[in-house]
Amino acid sequence: MTICHDRIEVGTKGKGLYEITDEVQSKIDKCGVQSGTTTVFVQHTSCSIVIMENADPTARRDLEDFFDRLIPEDKDYFEHSSEGSDDMPSHIRMVLTRTSETVPIANGKMQLGTWQGIFLFEHRRAPHRRKVSITVIGE
Amino acid sequence: MTICHDRIEVGTKGKGLYEITDEVQSKIDKCGVQSGTTTVFVQHTSCSIVIMENADPTARRDLEDFFDRLIPEDKDYFEHSSEGSDDMPSHIRMVLTRTSETVPIANGKMQLGTWQGIFLFEHRRAPHRRKVSITVIGE
Amino acid sequence: MTICHDRIEVGTKGKGLYEITDEVQSKIDKCGVQSGTTTVFVQHTSCSIVIMENADPTARRDLEDFFDRLIPEDKDYFEHSSEGSDDMPSHIRMVLTRTSETVPIANGKMQLGTWQGIFLFEHRRAPHRRKVSITVIGE
Repeated sequence: MTICHDRIEVGTKGKGLYEITDEVQSKIDKCGVQSGTTTVFVQHTSCSIVIMENADPTARRDLEDFFDRLIPEDKDYFEHSSEGSDDMPSHIRMVLTRTSETVPIANGKMQLGTWQGIFLFEHRRAPHRRKVSITVIGE
Repeated sequence: MTICHDRIEVGTKGKGLYEITDEVQSKIDKCGVQSGTTTVFVQHTSCSIVIMENADPTARRDLEDFFDRLIPEDKDYFEHSSEGSDDMPSHIRMVLTRTSETVPIANGKMQLGTWQGIFLFEHRRAPHRRKVSITVIGE
Repeated sequence: MTICHDRIEVGTKGKGLYEITDEVQSKIDKCGVQSGTTTVFVQHTSCSIVIMENADPTARRDLEDFFDRLIPEDKDYFEHSSEGSDDMPSHIRMVLTRTSETVPIANGKMQLGTWQGIFLFEHRRAPHRRKVSITVIGE
């Protein structure tokens, strides 16, 4: 069995989806595992990892707008507001989505569907550098 | 270590939950792993994999109705509408739920609770054939 | 390869987040795996496993309040109500969050970010004993 741990950093510039599919695959290539799984795990509680449609940018904008409507900022019902009006909504968005994705690997490639991409979903407005841990297990 | 990759196809006839627990277990049986994990991963962005209560059909209908109210179709705020009014809501439902589930295996069986079943959650109205990848890792 | 299966039980006293990070780490310590992953899986359909901000209790209260507003109890549109008014909302909360989390392990420790904790998210009002399965795979 081979286990590889690696990391990528994603520079974000405000809310939205940032595709990292190629960066993840390049870490799998470097590891050399042909068959197994990879777990893509983000080490923060104000952004998410999601698999999403990667073809049409309008689908990503509609997704972002939906989350803005579902969890509006500046609501007086938020008690946890010392870190900014987008902080508490960012934690809720994270809980409603995912902290990690586990993807099968066969023949050295992630077995994603045609339209699936892996994205870091940023929930904060200010620029951040996000640490994403990539673990590959297989042979 | 043993790693098995297999696949099932699920024919769907409209929105709703389609149980696949037995099909997943039969792929684990075929693989022969007694101890480890299985990752059930759907290769599409307009349906989901979820674990849900498998006893009472009314619980599944209530769940479907809730999602219809939370993400209504035919809203003019959706820009991504060229593939039908149920397409953009289907991507949002997928992001709010899950693309995969990872389940422990002991004594050759998935360690599900009494009322847990694995379901493909279809978000489109038209019939589809959905590809579900099943990876088993263990010994 | 080493595979360990273990279990913790969490006694809950109503809705809310119950941190289990230390209990999970102690099971990894007991297993002795230095490099790999752990899958924390709850065997119920009316509570969830989530990773959440573990520093500020107000963030957890705001999260709980958000879910109470998003999926209110006692709505007459729920057909599945024989087990109490908080039962159907509990299944919806579970589908909107997660049944399991998979976390990388390096140098014997979970690779959580500074503010990340693992929580059992209870969705029922009555006290429960919740079974959480912990699987460690690695070497």
